[in-house]
Amino acid sequence: MAKKPGRVHAAPAAKEAASAVFRFRPRVTWGGAVAIGPGKIALLEAIDRTGSITAAAKSLEMSYRRAWLLLDEVNRSLSELAVDSAQGGERGGGTTLTPVGKRLIELYRRIESKAETACSREIKALVGLLARGS
Amino acid sequence: MAKKPGRVHAAPAAKEAASAVFRFRPRVTWGGAVAIGPGKIALLEAIDRTGSITAAAKSLEMSYRRAWLLLDEVNRSLSELAVDSAQGGERGGGTTLTPVGKRLIELYRRIESKAETACSREIKALVGLLARGS
Repeated sequence: MAKKPGRVHAAPAAKEAASAVFRFRPRVTWGGAVAIGPGKIALLEAIDRTGSITAAAKSLEMSYRRAWLLLDEVNRSLSELAVDSAQGGERGGGTTLTPVGKRLIELYRRIESKAETACSREIKALVGLLARGS
Repeated sequence: MAKKPGRVHAAPAAKEAASAVFRFRPRVTWGGAVAIGPGKIALLEAIDRTGSITAAAKSLEMSYRRAWLLLDEVNRSLSELAVDSAQGGERGGGTTLTPVGKRLIELYRRIESKAETACSREIKALVGLLARGS
């Protein structure tokens, strides 16, 4: 399985189903409200993958309404829209990412992976303080 | 005002009260539950500062019960306790951090600040995509 950026797994102890997972969960807030965060980035990636808000919402097990509201928050916080929804036409209602939407995902994921590389020693030490069961 | 690690403020636009704030909010989860996260670290820091769970909870505007439960989750997830509560004695019920508790805070804050330094260019670019109002 490909290693996701932003995750560091502790060596699993014997007989342990779950292991500790370290994740950076970067957020940009505006006056307390989250403008960009892990949930919105995951939604944009799902739209990029599926080509539609409906399919993206379904793949994330979220209601269409919730996906639409998250997307609306993203679009309102950016200087340019993150997605482009076709009105009818050949793909009938398909939604694609704009260059700004793609750039947003790219920067967010790059921040996670660079941060993980830069802090790998400290992350291992932090996860090493944890112990579950015995 | 001292710059807090993990925060990058965008240049405030004219007539704008709030500005964008970027923060890493590192978390360590065990099977879905948060073992270590920003709220727990803030609580440990408040205990270190105030010397008591009651005062720490008050300073964070949280109930004693909630503080106690968070602390219990931290202690259960570590191989050694993060806090040491004196039973009576001269300081009567005071709570101090153990070396493991102090180490936990130190590692967590170091991860935030190293990550911010490593990603400063990308963070600026990400925050630069945001714009509010006009």
